[in-house]
Amino acid sequence: MLCRWAAGLRHAALQHGLISGAMSASGIRTGEPQAAEAERAHLTAVPPGWPPQREDFEPKLQGPRLHGPKAPPKASCPRSSQLMPCPPAFHHPEPDRGVTSMVNAGAMSASGNLMDFLDEPFPDVGTYEDFHTIDWLREKSRDTDRHRKITSKSKESIWEFIKSLLDAWSGWVVMLLIGLLAGTLAGVIDLAVDWMTDLKEGVCLSAFWYSHEQCCWTSNETTFEDRDKCPLWQKWSELLVNQSEGASAYILNYLMYILWALLFAFLAVSLVRVFAPYACGSGIPEIKTILSGFIIRGYLGKWTLLIKTVTLVLVVSSGLSLGKEGPLVHVACCCGNFFSSLFSKYSKNEGKRREVLSAAAAAGVSVAFGAPIGGVLFSLEEVSYYFPLKTLWRSFFAALVAAFTLRSINPFGNSRLVLFYVEYHTPWRRKTTKLGKYPVLEVIAVTAITAIIAYPNPYTRRSTSELISELFNDCGALESSQLCDYINDPNMTRPVDDIPDRPAGVGVYTAMWQLALALIFKIVITIFTFGMKIPSGLFIPSMAVGAMAGRMVGIGVEQLAYHHHDWIIFRNWCRPGADCVTPGLYAMVGAAACLGGVTRMTVSLVVIMFELTGGLEYIVPLMAAAVTSKWVADAFGKEGIYEAHIHLNGYPFLDVKDEFTHRTLATDVMRPRRGEPPLSVLTQDSMTVEDVETLIKETDYNGFPVVVSRDSERLIGFAQRRELILAIKNARQRQEGIVSNSIMYFTEEPPELPANSPHPLKLRRVLNLSPFTVTDHTPMETVVDIFRKLGLRQCLVTRSGRLLGIITKKDVLRHMAQMANQDPESIMFN
Amino acid sequence: MLCRWAAGLRHAALQHGLISGAMSASGIRTGEPQAAEAERAHLTAVPPGWPPQREDFEPKLQGPRLHGPKAPPKASCPRSSQLMPCPPAFHHPEPDRGVTSMVNAGAMSASGNLMDFLDEPFPDVGTYEDFHTIDWLREKSRDTDRHRKITSKSKESIWEFIKSLLDAWSGWVVMLLIGLLAGTLAGVIDLAVDWMTDLKEGVCLSAFWYSHEQCCWTSNETTFEDRDKCPLWQKWSELLVNQSEGASAYILNYLMYILWALLFAFLAVSLVRVFAPYACGSGIPEIKTILSGFIIRGYLGKWTLLIKTVTLVLVVSSGLSLGKEGPLVHVACCCGNFFSSLFSKYSKNEGKRREVLSAAAAAGVSVAFGAPIGGVLFSLEEVSYYFPLKTLWRSFFAALVAAFTLRSINPFGNSRLVLFYVEYHTPWRRKTTKLGKYPVLEVIAVTAITAIIAYPNPYTRRSTSELISELFNDCGALESSQLCDYINDPNMTRPVDDIPDRPAGVGVYTAMWQLALALIFKIVITIFTFGMKIPSGLFIPSMAVGAMAGRMVGIGVEQLAYHHHDWIIFRNWCRPGADCVTPGLYAMVGAAACLGGVTRMTVSLVVIMFELTGGLEYIVPLMAAAVTSKWVADAFGKEGIYEAHIHLNGYPFLDVKDEFTHRTLATDVMRPRRGEPPLSVLTQDSMTVEDVETLIKETDYNGFPVVVSRDSERLIGFAQRRELILAIKNARQRQEGIVSNSIMYFTEEPPELPANSPHPLKLRRVLNLSPFTVTDHTPMETVVDIFRKLGLRQCLVTRSGRLLGIITKKDVLRHMAQMANQDPESIMFN
Repeated sequence: MLCRWAAGLRHAALQHGLISGAMSASGIRTGEPQAAEAERAHLTAVPPGWPPQREDFEPKLQGPRLHGPKAPPKASCPRSSQLMPCPPAFHHPEPDRGVTSMVNAGAMSASGNLMDFLDEPFPDVGTYEDFHTIDWLREKSRDTDRHRKITSKSKESIWEFIKSLLDAWSGWVVMLLIGLLAGTLAGVIDLAVDWMTDLKEGVCLSAFWYSHEQCCWTSNETTFEDRDKCPLWQKWSELLVNQSEGASAYILNYLMYILWALLFAFLAVSLVRVFAPYACGSGIPEIKTILSGFIIRGYLGKWTLLIKTVTLVLVVSSGLSLGKEGPLVHVACCCGNFFSSLFSKYSKNEGKRREVLSAAAAAGVSVAFGAPIGGVLFSLEEVSYYFPLKTLWRSFFAALVAAFTLRSINPFGNSRLVLFYVEYHTPWRRKTTKLGKYPVLEVIAVTAITAIIAYPNPYTRRSTSELISELFNDCGALESSQLCDYINDPNMTRPVDDIPDRPAGVGVYTAMWQLALALIFKIVITIFTFGMKIPSGLFIPSMAVGAMAGRMVGIGVEQLAYHHHDWIIFRNWCRPGADCVTPGLYAMVGAAACLGGVTRMTVSLVVIMFELTGGLEYIVPLMAAAVTSKWVADAFGKEGIYEAHIHLNGYPFLDVKDEFTHRTLATDVMRPRRGEPPLSVLTQDSMTVEDVETLIKETDYNGFPVVVSRDSERLIGFAQRRELILAIKNARQRQEGIVSNSIMYFTEEPPELPANSPHPLKLRRVLNLSPFTVTDHTPMETVVDIFRKLGLRQCLVTRSGRLLGIITKKDVLRHMAQMANQDPESIMFN
Repeated sequence: MLCRWAAGLRHAALQHGLISGAMSASGIRTGEPQAAEAERAHLTAVPPGWPPQREDFEPKLQGPRLHGPKAPPKASCPRSSQLMPCPPAFHHPEPDRGVTSMVNAGAMSASGNLMDFLDEPFPDVGTYEDFHTIDWLREKSRDTDRHRKITSKSKESIWEFIKSLLDAWSGWVVMLLIGLLAGTLAGVIDLAVDWMTDLKEGVCLSAFWYSHEQCCWTSNETTFEDRDKCPLWQKWSELLVNQSEGASAYILNYLMYILWALLFAFLAVSLVRVFAPYACGSGIPEIKTILSGFIIRGYLGKWTLLIKTVTLVLVVSSGLSLGKEGPLVHVACCCGNFFSSLFSKYSKNEGKRREVLSAAAAAGVSVAFGAPIGGVLFSLEEVSYYFPLKTLWRSFFAALVAAFTLRSINPFGNSRLVLFYVEYHTPWRRKTTKLGKYPVLEVIAVTAITAIIAYPNPYTRRSTSELISELFNDCGALESSQLCDYINDPNMTRPVDDIPDRPAGVGVYTAMWQLALALIFKIVITIFTFGMKIPSGLFIPSMAVGAMAGRMVGIGVEQLAYHHHDWIIFRNWCRPGADCVTPGLYAMVGAAACLGGVTRMTVSLVVIMFELTGGLEYIVPLMAAAVTSKWVADAFGKEGIYEAHIHLNGYPFLDVKDEFTHRTLATDVMRPRRGEPPLSVLTQDSMTVEDVETLIKETDYNGFPVVVSRDSERLIGFAQRRELILAIKNARQRQEGIVSNSIMYFTEEPPELPANSPHPLKLRRVLNLSPFTVTDHTPMETVVDIFRKLGLRQCLVTRSGRLLGIITKKDVLRHMAQMANQDPESIMFN
């Protein structure tokens, strides 16, 4: 509900049309001075013009504002700023980290170190603004050029050949490094969470950094039965007042539990707030958006990586109702971004970089659940966008390495891949509260309530993953859980692993009540936990809710079957004394169904569930649960939680799974609309440098179509704004005789000019000769498909070769929103 | 190696430019009269002009030849006809079944039942020729139109509303039906194979339709130890000469075994040859091609379904070295095609139909292996083309239903999903043999050799799935297999399920020799079995080869570790008396690696392997094996077996996974090339009906670009050949005043004509106003991407709105082949 303080400011700035990559690159930051101050201490390079002045927010067109996006009208802001649970902060404290980090230096120091633009492409060509969309086709063809260059060079010398080999293998190297780092981080997080969760209850005397289990494991006095109690492990009451039982000991332990929880939560929210605002939330919606081609600079930065890892440990240990898989995916993607910045193949190409991120997401899920295949599928089904199959193979490798690394660290002392070591997560969204304005206070309050209510109930006090594990398990003969307090038939002679249905004992009834209370509490507190300005995941709380409900239903059916085994539904398969109902399976199915309803995952959900539980034989009920829950949930609304988030944040995300079925044509969507001024175009050989500079100054489009002449309007190409600016700037500095009234031409040959006219400027280099065009009669359905599949940024509309207008990704998204009766202004970025 | 007799004829016909959908629809068939005769008996409707005369092969342009594909030059034929292991027969015996079966009636009876073309679209609009490629964008927009019509109608009455609901749910209904039928067929096949495999050795006296196991199971005299021997089950020697032991009994059993095998194989090859030539081979390459948008009429017909199901039982029972998963995928796709023909939503739209087929393929793998998730992944990774994620959800449902149905049939008496009930398959390809000309003889010969060599060796006599199962299993205490004949330590006191490494006994050494011989035999015979004109799969023989090699290596390492446990590599984890090497795991990894090398599957391979074996804990070694085998195999060549097949058959398949990285531009690939005559175009308002008819008669292009005039060459749209022909035909019959010199116009308003000129013909209806265009400077890389992702059939090339040329899918594929230094003429279809 917080994670939102920068949003208001961002919206204010957006209204002034001010936010752009150039701005954030030049150091404009949040209006909270103390936060900015603290951030500065951690910046390796403070950009010029820092710290920013409030005046920077005033609208002015000169200076660093080169090409900001069009400002969305005011109407969109109140709604968005209220609904957005975790919007991107509108700037980023560290300009040289994160996706497209290489942009900044180029843009700002272009005048200093530019090569002659006739020989080399401008260093800045092919980069994008913050909160803008990349052009996939262009990225792809840039990579092919690079690849061709390396291949042709490799024949020149052995050194170049080795370099080309290294280049070819760099993808695998990056995957290996990501897998290693993601696995290591996950292992460290697991170990730290283990220790800090136990710290809330007591401390190990032999070594304070031991968790409860490790402490007692190393102790020689422990027997198997007493493995949870050992003299070296002291509860706080034992340590402080030397009492282990009784009311005062209980209260003291209760207080210490709350105190530690508050401390952890406070530390976490402060760290996020001060150092890395992007570290909040689960991160999956933003990663989905980034993978679809959007730029959020700094979202995957080193700083975010560090803070998210540390705070994740803190919040999970604090016992809040949230989980760690979403954040682990974010952490893995940060690793991916970091390692891809080490290889020019990836750091200089936004498209290639996203291939790495896509695989990194798979590695993240792989370590979060210990489910490598589930991770690959999750990346495929939920996260990846442009290359679902191309990266499958590398994702698989990264997930493998990550799982293997985690297994080598072996945080749980068993040499299998971790089962159920994921923590809470939160499934529902909410609007806003008054508390939302005070993020730290909100976190403290929610933590206090969670701790106070959670402690007395055994099903909420323990970690949620333990709870789920208990709910999934069946009652074996040795089971000491309350849930297994059945009345045993003294005449029973069956082997212990085949226990028939029995009447429930007192313990089961107590457990049912406690579970019911825990279920209500979990649902409510999860709603409130969600959206706080701390890293928080989504899977485990959903699974816990589903598992509790499932187990309760399971026990109910079991008792019904026991007492009424002559009912028709039970008669065929429930003989008296047989084991015909398995409450643990009900819990498992419930968990899958609940998680499926929240995320709308299907195949990946089932794979993750059965990798988690090893329950291969339960595939059919799990699949049935996933299918049913998706149908039921779809009846309430088609969007999963991640899509809903993307929507709330107004990101330009074209969902691959959506269908566009309206009858509109390209001509209905293109700009200019009827009554609007004509499109700003360049002519191929009749505009002066000054004309173009004026046009650039007066508009904020990302690029301009180039036509033969204003009369014929026959399209010959498209010129990017950024490249035009750089080319003109460069020409004015380097080329002789270029003045304001020099003619600019895009043709091969210079136009015929009067004798006394100044030297013309050739700009064919910056002209894209293959702009994407559709005719005005093209159905929007096809246009949407083209944008989606080819990853276009814009598309020109022509009729018989005459330029009519332009359609950008934003236009497409707005049109889609309009057709779905949504507010088209909720799409805020281009 | 057979499955090819029609290929020669097809190629002869191709050289005459004769094969086209219209021809095959009008009844031209193979030159083998007896086969055609037999086929006729099964045709429900004999098309006019049947039986065909040899004269039909002579080139003539009138008559049914409306728009045949361009004839590939002679050069391609010898190579293709030799290499092609299982080419499509060029005609099909049953015109009204299979993909696009709805085409024929329309094309042939168009004149009879056409509505007024001004009110309704022509009934034939949107259909395609056999061996042609569909236009995905067009299919998609046709479906959207249909959907919109239903939605708007649904508000009119309750009946229409119910109809719209039914339409919306028809996709799920189709999935349900496919799952049910595919599961049932797989269950029936399993039961039948079980019985017929046992029939080779003996017969059940109480009921001859019982398999060995069923026979002894129903017998009361059977004890657990003697469960394989019971008086009711009689070997042939017992039944015929009343001897159960001795040389003569052995020889008699041997002979009966061979006899039955030959009988089954002969029946199978005859059935395939006479009734359904398309039923041969595994079918997966063709299904991949069909899913990518190619039309092979009859490939998924009802007749193919029936024959493939029956012959699959026969060939698997005959003991040939082949498997049933590939064919089961084909069978499931036939089911999918059958059910989709029941719903107009799918039967009338080639794009939608392919969505159903994609899910059906998942159901096929699901029942073949009892691995529903593996099936979905296989469909995703290997088979699906245009909609990898869109059909995920329905594939999942179909796979679930199919697995559930199979489980209900429960062919193996255990209530789990089938593990290892898949039969042989064959991984390598070969060129041709002299035997190849005599398909039946070839099958008989290979079967005889297989049976003769297989019988004496216990590892080849039993079914391959049993063999694999034994190789995967570890030696428990109760294991009676030869492979587990270890020398037991009499002092051993450990529990039975934790057996330490032991020295190998005599049985193990014998088993090693037999395994080595079986391995060699299996590799050789599999090579020869592959490509025979019978249904044959690929997975199980590959897995068997891998498992045998793996188990042998595993035993070797185990003995090495036992005898040399002080070696450095063993020292850390092999204490004497511990169980440190598991030969079964080596077998499992070997099977995965071998299968991965053959098919280049990755994620789906691992999922199938662990669904098959339930070995969740072995994910990491399995993943490592898949990664390594793919790397090693890729070093020899990038193509998997299915891609290699597609390539050999010259299908127009644009692989999504290939990268095109050459520097060519659209202008290098487009037609007309330099020196070629200019493109055949239509003008928007200056050509007469006769001009157009001449143009259609003289060329065989699929469509013609429409330009403003021959001088300006500004493109306004594209008209399909087929639709032009129908529209003119229709107008001549129905419209008053349309004569040969009527002006045809594509504009909204009729052109201004002299007063005495005949009534002009408006053809705007058949004009596609949004043809896909690229500029001549567009890199081919982008063009390839566009063709791949948007599923185009052709694309027009323009410069500043002026039409320069056209690029078809075939041009793209030929160019890619040329760039890869392959013969561009190997691409045969458009």
